[in-house]
Amino acid sequence: MRRWLLPEAIEDVLPAEAWHIETLRRRLLDEFRRHGYEFVIPPLLEYVESLLTGSGRDLDLRTFKLVDQLSGRTMGIRADIAPQVARIDAHLLNRTGVTRLCYCGSVLHTLPAGLTATRQPLQIGAELYGHAGIEADVEMLRLLAGALQLSGITTTRIDVGHVGVFRALADGAALEADQEQELFGALQAKDQPSLRELLKSVAEPYRSALLALPECYGGNEALQRAESFLPALPEIGQALAELRSLAGAVKDLQLSFDLADLRGLHYHSGMVFAAYCAEHPGAIALGGRYDKVGKAFGRSRAATGFSLDLRELARLAPGTAALGAILAPCPSSGDDAVAMQAVVKELRGKGEIVINELPGHASADWDQVGCNRRLTLREGRWQIETFVKE
Amino acid sequence: MRRWLLPEAIEDVLPAEAWHIETLRRRLLDEFRRHGYEFVIPPLLEYVESLLTGSGRDLDLRTFKLVDQLSGRTMGIRADIAPQVARIDAHLLNRTGVTRLCYCGSVLHTLPAGLTATRQPLQIGAELYGHAGIEADVEMLRLLAGALQLSGITTTRIDVGHVGVFRALADGAALEADQEQELFGALQAKDQPSLRELLKSVAEPYRSALLALPECYGGNEALQRAESFLPALPEIGQALAELRSLAGAVKDLQLSFDLADLRGLHYHSGMVFAAYCAEHPGAIALGGRYDKVGKAFGRSRAATGFSLDLRELARLAPGTAALGAILAPCPSSGDDAVAMQAVVKELRGKGEIVINELPGHASADWDQVGCNRRLTLREGRWQIETFVKE
Repeated sequence: MRRWLLPEAIEDVLPAEAWHIETLRRRLLDEFRRHGYEFVIPPLLEYVESLLTGSGRDLDLRTFKLVDQLSGRTMGIRADIAPQVARIDAHLLNRTGVTRLCYCGSVLHTLPAGLTATRQPLQIGAELYGHAGIEADVEMLRLLAGALQLSGITTTRIDVGHVGVFRALADGAALEADQEQELFGALQAKDQPSLRELLKSVAEPYRSALLALPECYGGNEALQRAESFLPALPEIGQALAELRSLAGAVKDLQLSFDLADLRGLHYHSGMVFAAYCAEHPGAIALGGRYDKVGKAFGRSRAATGFSLDLRELARLAPGTAALGAILAPCPSSGDDAVAMQAVVKELRGKGEIVINELPGHASADWDQVGCNRRLTLREGRWQIETFVKE
Repeated sequence: MRRWLLPEAIEDVLPAEAWHIETLRRRLLDEFRRHGYEFVIPPLLEYVESLLTGSGRDLDLRTFKLVDQLSGRTMGIRADIAPQVARIDAHLLNRTGVTRLCYCGSVLHTLPAGLTATRQPLQIGAELYGHAGIEADVEMLRLLAGALQLSGITTTRIDVGHVGVFRALADGAALEADQEQELFGALQAKDQPSLRELLKSVAEPYRSALLALPECYGGNEALQRAESFLPALPEIGQALAELRSLAGAVKDLQLSFDLADLRGLHYHSGMVFAAYCAEHPGAIALGGRYDKVGKAFGRSRAATGFSLDLRELARLAPGTAALGAILAPCPSSGDDAVAMQAVVKELRGKGEIVINELPGHASADWDQVGCNRRLTLREGRWQIETFVKE
């Protein structure tokens, strides 16, 4: 057996990619911070009761379970950080007003979400608690758009949905939990034949409305279609009014609507959104309202936020060309060495990578680690010269 | 049951501490990078055969085990990142020359290492592969000393040991594995009565030499004591010569020696070191040679490195006083709003935290999240004024 083989869908991140990820991590966390989002670090594991509070069966199945040797209780490795941050807002900070938090950390999934998905995404996100008004959703959309722009990503569109619409129809049609689950799958897949089959026994106007949901897709005309196709339930009216008011507030972001997008059904409570960019089939970031999660922790709080996989973002974001390193002789004693150390310190202070040579290695070895210049003593002065392999 | 209680020795890190950790993380990773250490991100879990290769029973017991649903094989959550980085050097990069790598990530332990220890340390470290000479050890000691200084930590001393001394004595005395294990414990605890008891049946000169090891402690005189107390075995002679030459090369670092320090016995192969600072009883950083780890992965490579718990470092390192945030009105439309957004952008560009007000919250709420100044429109110009709670 080859000992260095990693489990399927688990990867090492090697130098160039790792530094690219680190650069994006800093850029995004700094952007969140400048907007008042405070950084928190929730733990990798918690008791399952706490970790899976308010979440669906889906997250439960994705969560690795472990036995705590100290308590004998079952712990889980987090598969999503957002519920942990909601717990921190609800119980640890326990502030009366608006709280903005952000985070960045690895999560683990028992099974990869898709053929090319990793089981260890690096989740980064921002959350806003304590404000139910549309201003919070607008801030979130702008923060996400700004973060993607800072990453060098061209956002092609942001799809906005509202789980309130489906919820109102499902409640009106008195759907059973498993029926709702199947409908959910068919709507996500925009699978009209299955949808028709599943809705056979559902009463009007809910049947026609649920069948029409996938057509409520596109620009502002999607909201007009929704108004004419969907029954005039108060919850639906409110959801459409919220979406219309959001569209008015962020005209520059080119929103489109998708009322059949239910990715966060078990979790989200209101508006949901997904950002897309060129050269990537799926959404690069997901977010929305989840006002009920705090309630599960015993403290009801309005909440909205988004998150994305920083490793995926790094694959799509343009990297910066590496400048290359400077090779300096191995430090020794003497005046020249003291002068050299001063030069090296100055170069490093300017952000240069300066690698100290170690004796007995061929110059090709130093080329291998990216040295393209060399610090050389020439006429009593330390100078940077082009690195030449001997 | 209170759902938000975390398992014992597992903690959330809240805003002020979390940002302090993030600041130190960046400072250290930048320092490593400027010295040519390339950042890598090994995964949180691996098959146990790979994760525990070349390590002792101690690490095995500290490692959480999981079953891989894709392969049915046992995986472990890493309890130490250094062996993963050795695997990356040995197999993924596979370079002929010197390779410098660094990393920063969480590890998990089944049980806390001590009464106040966390089960989720944030391990940060640097490793140098492919150079067996003393120059690499010198570079490591200097890099560690520099990193601690950058963190604002006053290093009180660095203790240096050499597992080759104990190894040579244990081999000479033909100790059995469990006997060696017990001796190891007694030496670490500097427990002379147990040591005497354990060494009763051991032949001279090994018995006297092992009893004398705890006395080989202190400045350069410790090496002199070692020379007079310990038998003149070639391995011991070499170890002492290496230590002497190290002490000569880093006179400014105030090394002390401790030949009974065997913390890395199962892992390390030569020189080992531990850095101490004021107001902390244990070592703040541990490091040393582990030339045999690469061999376990099928590629023998000289290796030396160190690591530390960034969370522990953050508790000891002085923080920087927070400047406080600026509260800006909620963005709306109109000329004043456009002008305000430009001012806000400029302030954020300068590193200020600017928080957008959301309607309907009391000014005490904004005080709670650190706002001490406010952006106000005064005579047609946006100005920063002291924040006053109404």
